[in-house]
Amino acid sequence: MAFDAGREREFKIVGTRVARPDGIDKVTGKALYGADMTAPGMLHGRILRSPHAHARIVSIDTSAAEALKGVKAVVTSADLTRPDDEGLADIADNCLARDKALYDGHAIAAVAAVDKSVAREAIRLIRVEYEVLPHVTDVDEAMKPGAPVVQSGRSDETVGDSFSENVTSHFEFGHGDVDAGFSRADKVIQRTFKTAATHQGYIEPHACLASVGPDGRGDLWCCTQGQFNVRTICAELMGMEASNLRVTASEIGGGFGGKTTVFIEPVALALARKSGRPVKIVMSREEVFRATGPTVSSSIDVKIGMTSDGRITAGQSRLRYQGGAFPCGTVEFGAQAAFAAYDLDAVQTLGWNVMTNRPKEVAYRAPGAPMAIYAVESVVDELCQELSLDPLDTRILNAARKGTLSSYGPTFNEIGLLATLEAAKEHPHYTAPLGENQGRGLSCGFWFNFGGNTCVSLNLNSDGTVGVVEGNPDIGGSRASITMMAAEELGIPYDRVRTVITDTNSIGFNDVTDGSRVTFAVGLATIEAARAAIREMCSRVAKIWGIDEEAVVWEDGYAKPSGPNAGEFEPMSIAEIAATADNTGGPIAGHFEVNADGAGVSFGVHLVDTEVDPETGTTKVLRYTIFQDAGKAVHPDYVEGQMQGGAVQGIGWALNEEYIYGEDGRLQNAGFLDYRIPVASDLPSIETVILEIPNPGHPYGVRGVGETPIVPPLAAISNAVSRATGVRMTELPMSPPRLLKAMSQKG
Amino acid sequence: MAFDAGREREFKIVGTRVARPDGIDKVTGKALYGADMTAPGMLHGRILRSPHAHARIVSIDTSAAEALKGVKAVVTSADLTRPDDEGLADIADNCLARDKALYDGHAIAAVAAVDKSVAREAIRLIRVEYEVLPHVTDVDEAMKPGAPVVQSGRSDETVGDSFSENVTSHFEFGHGDVDAGFSRADKVIQRTFKTAATHQGYIEPHACLASVGPDGRGDLWCCTQGQFNVRTICAELMGMEASNLRVTASEIGGGFGGKTTVFIEPVALALARKSGRPVKIVMSREEVFRATGPTVSSSIDVKIGMTSDGRITAGQSRLRYQGGAFPCGTVEFGAQAAFAAYDLDAVQTLGWNVMTNRPKEVAYRAPGAPMAIYAVESVVDELCQELSLDPLDTRILNAARKGTLSSYGPTFNEIGLLATLEAAKEHPHYTAPLGENQGRGLSCGFWFNFGGNTCVSLNLNSDGTVGVVEGNPDIGGSRASITMMAAEELGIPYDRVRTVITDTNSIGFNDVTDGSRVTFAVGLATIEAARAAIREMCSRVAKIWGIDEEAVVWEDGYAKPSGPNAGEFEPMSIAEIAATADNTGGPIAGHFEVNADGAGVSFGVHLVDTEVDPETGTTKVLRYTIFQDAGKAVHPDYVEGQMQGGAVQGIGWALNEEYIYGEDGRLQNAGFLDYRIPVASDLPSIETVILEIPNPGHPYGVRGVGETPIVPPLAAISNAVSRATGVRMTELPMSPPRLLKAMSQKG
Repeated sequence: MAFDAGREREFKIVGTRVARPDGIDKVTGKALYGADMTAPGMLHGRILRSPHAHARIVSIDTSAAEALKGVKAVVTSADLTRPDDEGLADIADNCLARDKALYDGHAIAAVAAVDKSVAREAIRLIRVEYEVLPHVTDVDEAMKPGAPVVQSGRSDETVGDSFSENVTSHFEFGHGDVDAGFSRADKVIQRTFKTAATHQGYIEPHACLASVGPDGRGDLWCCTQGQFNVRTICAELMGMEASNLRVTASEIGGGFGGKTTVFIEPVALALARKSGRPVKIVMSREEVFRATGPTVSSSIDVKIGMTSDGRITAGQSRLRYQGGAFPCGTVEFGAQAAFAAYDLDAVQTLGWNVMTNRPKEVAYRAPGAPMAIYAVESVVDELCQELSLDPLDTRILNAARKGTLSSYGPTFNEIGLLATLEAAKEHPHYTAPLGENQGRGLSCGFWFNFGGNTCVSLNLNSDGTVGVVEGNPDIGGSRASITMMAAEELGIPYDRVRTVITDTNSIGFNDVTDGSRVTFAVGLATIEAARAAIREMCSRVAKIWGIDEEAVVWEDGYAKPSGPNAGEFEPMSIAEIAATADNTGGPIAGHFEVNADGAGVSFGVHLVDTEVDPETGTTKVLRYTIFQDAGKAVHPDYVEGQMQGGAVQGIGWALNEEYIYGEDGRLQNAGFLDYRIPVASDLPSIETVILEIPNPGHPYGVRGVGETPIVPPLAAISNAVSRATGVRMTELPMSPPRLLKAMSQKG
Repeated sequence: MAFDAGREREFKIVGTRVARPDGIDKVTGKALYGADMTAPGMLHGRILRSPHAHARIVSIDTSAAEALKGVKAVVTSADLTRPDDEGLADIADNCLARDKALYDGHAIAAVAAVDKSVAREAIRLIRVEYEVLPHVTDVDEAMKPGAPVVQSGRSDETVGDSFSENVTSHFEFGHGDVDAGFSRADKVIQRTFKTAATHQGYIEPHACLASVGPDGRGDLWCCTQGQFNVRTICAELMGMEASNLRVTASEIGGGFGGKTTVFIEPVALALARKSGRPVKIVMSREEVFRATGPTVSSSIDVKIGMTSDGRITAGQSRLRYQGGAFPCGTVEFGAQAAFAAYDLDAVQTLGWNVMTNRPKEVAYRAPGAPMAIYAVESVVDELCQELSLDPLDTRILNAARKGTLSSYGPTFNEIGLLATLEAAKEHPHYTAPLGENQGRGLSCGFWFNFGGNTCVSLNLNSDGTVGVVEGNPDIGGSRASITMMAAEELGIPYDRVRTVITDTNSIGFNDVTDGSRVTFAVGLATIEAARAAIREMCSRVAKIWGIDEEAVVWEDGYAKPSGPNAGEFEPMSIAEIAATADNTGGPIAGHFEVNADGAGVSFGVHLVDTEVDPETGTTKVLRYTIFQDAGKAVHPDYVEGQMQGGAVQGIGWALNEEYIYGEDGRLQNAGFLDYRIPVASDLPSIETVILEIPNPGHPYGVRGVGETPIVPPLAAISNAVSRATGVRMTELPMSPPRLLKAMSQKG
């Protein structure tokens, strides 16, 4: 059978705003989250954390804790296997410190006890002798020769020797001759920016329940964005084969990238193995702040040349990202993304990964891109101001489009940047009047979008309903979008399809729910699985009718006779085919496994009006409009929700959120009272404009939408604040004291 | 690719005695059973049961119970949907009585409360007004015109009007002219037998945890032999679509057929829906006896004619099975099985299903067959005694074989009866000397074996281990046998394969674990899924090598180049293929869905020596040897375990187990102290002889083994007792008082 390419397809379900299948469970409390699972004989785990930013662990005496009645196990790093792979070894060392405590809050040891109060007491009884070492938390300080070295011997050959050992790796992208480009410019601006580390700020602290049998096989229940990744990592850290660990993902109370790795899970497994009992660990909010998340903080130089008519002649960025004690190399994404919105003859981006005495960096929505693009979009805005150019027209003039050689290498296919810029230009927001102390800013945003390994099974139930089985936790409404695509392809109502997210041992391998990959890749696999099921249904019907398989076609949820047999038999519905499956060979299913590519990059443009109180330095967001290419928007509500949610988080980065470290290297604001995320009363209603430029890599034209919207707010708000105040801000967050200080310095 | 037919195959793993994958979990307490699951906010359910054998429910006043602090829901039959289908309506009425209480222990109402003591108190506060009715518990009494009628209007057209309304249906099988056959006989014996109702006697009482959201979607955790069947039934009784109920099977602490249906699950779901909270119900042992299980009790006439040289000229049986208040029609299996071991020119079997005021009958290992074959094999034995014939030679002479037209219709394919009889004859047990008060008995046994709907998925993990996903609870070691077949087909070690039994929404539909179907049907599907994965692996390797798919062959766990490309490339292992799957298209899997037939019938012969104490009537089993055709014995330990376990249960039926009802129609022995199952000290070590006559319907020749071994013990022991005492016993169990009475009557 042939299936539509889907690009010109008229959708019946895709594009509508159906209720999400998990909604009622979640609002009524039926949904089970990480902390909601228990097991008979369960122990409570608790973790001892370093009070020092940097200290050698001279000794750990666990004897008093072990002797306490009710304590069933105490573990240290010696209870984890340290893999050869450097990335996995870092995770092991982050889960339980090996020789040194590398940051305030670094896990040192853990106990499992019969109840929480015994566990708390046991933690107090563990005696750790520390030799406190000098520490460094600032990225620029950490790079300087002579800075305290977080870990030795971690620099790769790309780094050179002009930096301290804290610089671990270096990346470079670009093409053309930037010096020649700058020399052709009428105006060149170079500035240095700094951004703060921010936390993903999910509501649900990390929680898990682990058990390990004497045969070494384990079960793990946890809140995660990727049960398969948890399995891979934890199995390595436990010295187990992956298939001996069955991981089930609970519902997830927010992740935003922060739940793509593990923190407590290997510790709970090690405690479970040692005690022979199930062990539950639930983090406190303070632990979440001190020892999970956050994103990198950065120091960035950007230099851009422009002709007086707005043509960018060259762009250059130097990105320095600190990723805490165990950096991941996120600067690579930053260096790739920095100039992605522009069609440039000459571009160069350089990136350095830097270690500091801070918690290990973790992915946070479009990891590495917001800070890089913030810096670039700030300089573009300043050039427009200096050259009296319209900032939208200037971006349209320089916009990347189909055929553009991107700043990071690939040539773009169909992309929606120009369409979003033009939509912004035509939108009434762009020309609405502004009052006193008010300014309007805009910024482009970009994310790559990922595909990746994906497995979907689709089963027909005997009552004609359809079950979709997938393996990616639903962090943004993907159960709805997957269900919709299955129903669309099969031609049955949405409420006849149920999608479940199953455990690691009930379906093939799936990559993490990240990179805006799920609605694209799982959707693609679901459509292909549905097509496999349709082929099987047509074959069964051909058997029933006694005609050629080729003579059975699928239309609108029915198998119909065609060709010479057209009209000869009554069309059969899925329900009818399913009801007779016993007699035609057994249960009917469709399966699809793929390492999906062709995810299709994503662009957006944010437009924002702010008002700055000159007395207090407080910035109020007055109006906010988002323009984004979603490819085909499967469920517009959730696409809009992703756009709004990303913008809100970006507003937090721009205005308030930051990890504040004292002179002692200890985190001073490990809680939502002192780490201020935007709340509803801080925000206007955020308007969204979805553009649908089909992604040729997906049968329905879908592209990821979840990451891009966190990228533009930083520069958009900074540009709006600059235009409201006349002060060009180069450090985030633009918290009231910092903005007030800048305004008063300018006078 | 072509695969071996498997019949002549040399197995490497199949046939060995590897450790079962779930063994350590089970002996160390890590395995989670029905009662081991909890949920936040969980309530405890409890059921009010009828104290009467038969009573009209005039009224139920739940107001006082509802008013009790801590009570969150009270349900009666009004809270269940009564399906149109008669079988499902019976289940509904059995779960919560509608108009009448039909047996002692029949569920009347249920409560859910914050703890068990409140639930207990609430049950006491429910006021039920009963109008007590006359009752009947004996099958022969129940059939008589004028007997108290359990339910009216349930007789179908096959029954005729010579019986009471308690007879619900009638079956007849056979061929030839039995009267002419009897007239050709030198000796005709006709006798009437009675067997008692017996309980499956599983260690684990029924237990479940249910939750239902306000959107009507539910989750159910329970101990069951078939999560899909539980889903189908419960969804009907809740008025839900099946796909809205996700059922997960816990580990199971024994089932033996008794956990193929539901008792408490719909009640827990109804309570959960009404309370909006998760509800757990765990049965007491007394509830298990009063209201679950048991098998039918029976009254049977058998008439057999034999020539003096041992040829059976005709056989006839009349089977009357009472199945409690809601009979299932098990007598049909009995009527089919009665003479299955014999090659007869004339045979007739008649069966009647009868209602009584007893709990609903439930499948119990080879349901319906043991009592029918007990009666036939007793008469055959008596004929051998009367005609001074060797009982083994006589059975060999008359044995069904390939080509025999069976007593129930089909013509037999390859069967192992003759081989088992001959093996018994050659075994030293058959000719070993016997002492005083000792006797030797033997009996044939038979079971059909089922196939049925089955779905298996097989996934390659990136570390080269393999996950098998199936949907049939492991009641007899099937995780081991399935794992072995997957490893055998793939050519990798057993410990590289992990098999999980997943929930109803993570794989396609699977029939219940019953009828000895699992190792046959799930094994077949696993082998086919492995072959699908092998085809995919060969295709990936062809891509890597850049050669034709046809030129890649699979041998001993490696893809190898063949034909013109032979020797051109290094063979690739599964681990190597899996490790590169990312680059060749993504995850690798194999899937298979089938409604399997060709299960292959099963025969066995049991040989037993007993000694009867003439003072007490106590029967001691001295020596016991089992001969059974297992097709290919995948895991001989578990085949032997099935044979031994079935024999032990049959010994219980023969000697001690029975439901004892008082004049008031109430069960008098609802506990293991008064309902006596055999314990280890009652038994000799049971010797087993496995014969392997390959089943042509399975790629490895497997046939089911779990049911047949419960069939022969009844007659084998009765025949041994008769020969030890000179008293022909015709009623089971042959408990000491009953046997003593018979011996004293004989004098």
